[in-house]
Amino acid sequence: MDKAELAKKVKAACYLEGDFILSSGRRSKYYLDKYRFSTLPELLRAVAKELAARLPEGINRIAGAELGAVPLAAAVSLETGLPYVIVKKETKDYGTKNPVEGVLNAGDRVALVEDIITTAAQSIKAAQRLVAAGATVEKIIGVIDREEGGSENIAAAGFAYDRVFTKSELGI
Amino acid sequence: MDKAELAKKVKAACYLEGDFILSSGRRSKYYLDKYRFSTLPELLRAVAKELAARLPEGINRIAGAELGAVPLAAAVSLETGLPYVIVKKETKDYGTKNPVEGVLNAGDRVALVEDIITTAAQSIKAAQRLVAAGATVEKIIGVIDREEGGSENIAAAGFAYDRVFTKSELGI
Repeated sequence: MDKAELAKKVKAACYLEGDFILSSGRRSKYYLDKYRFSTLPELLRAVAKELAARLPEGINRIAGAELGAVPLAAAVSLETGLPYVIVKKETKDYGTKNPVEGVLNAGDRVALVEDIITTAAQSIKAAQRLVAAGATVEKIIGVIDREEGGSENIAAAGFAYDRVFTKSELGI
Repeated sequence: MDKAELAKKVKAACYLEGDFILSSGRRSKYYLDKYRFSTLPELLRAVAKELAARLPEGINRIAGAELGAVPLAAAVSLETGLPYVIVKKETKDYGTKNPVEGVLNAGDRVALVEDIITTAAQSIKAAQRLVAAGATVEKIIGVIDREEGGSENIAAAGFAYDRVFTKSELGI
């Protein structure tokens, strides 16, 4: 499907009106429930293709932060054949104790995919954890940018950035 | 790839020897790191095909429990065209507050996919949360069964069960 049709379907799937408190602590009159598009295979595949089209040259791994970006990272991995890692929210106290699940090697060149970009605080933190593990983060790529400072914050943190849709492009 | 080749590759990817404490609290001399196969697209796709081949007739939704089964549920969804839901570990305190992410309707007939089956305590809990939300869980399907009581516990809880591999089939 083309990008305009995907925009329409993504908005129809995930746009909720109400009174919400976002993870950043901000209140919002609307919420974008990323799971409403990432759990529908037709939309997950189409979004993954759009993300894959924005991957920089030369990367060898995809990354997605727990939990929302995990289906996206897996779908982009299946789309491209590149392996991926999951950046954990916190380490668990059993089994292996990794801040990152999957295999990440020093020197890996990674693209971090993200669902919704608001202030991008979580994406930047995830990217910094990948850097701390010895990787370089070549780009952060969001599905929907709420246009609330995320792109500026990512630039200030020293990472390249792209997104599939802005909220304006979704007609929000 | 055929099942024997997949077994070899899955074991090579995920079998770790050492001294581990499992989520059930048990100690083990080996650990199966599911992320080591679920983050490799070739193995993720092949495992998803094996899981998809074990889906019962008539289901309309896949489910996977946070976090390990999420890539599996997404990949089976992409493989089959059926939507999926994520059964959360705990509800978050912002945005929408769902024990299940994605759309689950009363009367949905669900297959729950799981990475590693040990005692199956987590899978049974996830299945019961789906039932509490009004769905029926037609089958629980694991990728690797450690043969430590999981299948008996699932039967005792009243759910149907299948798995792709037993640990014996992996030569463990």
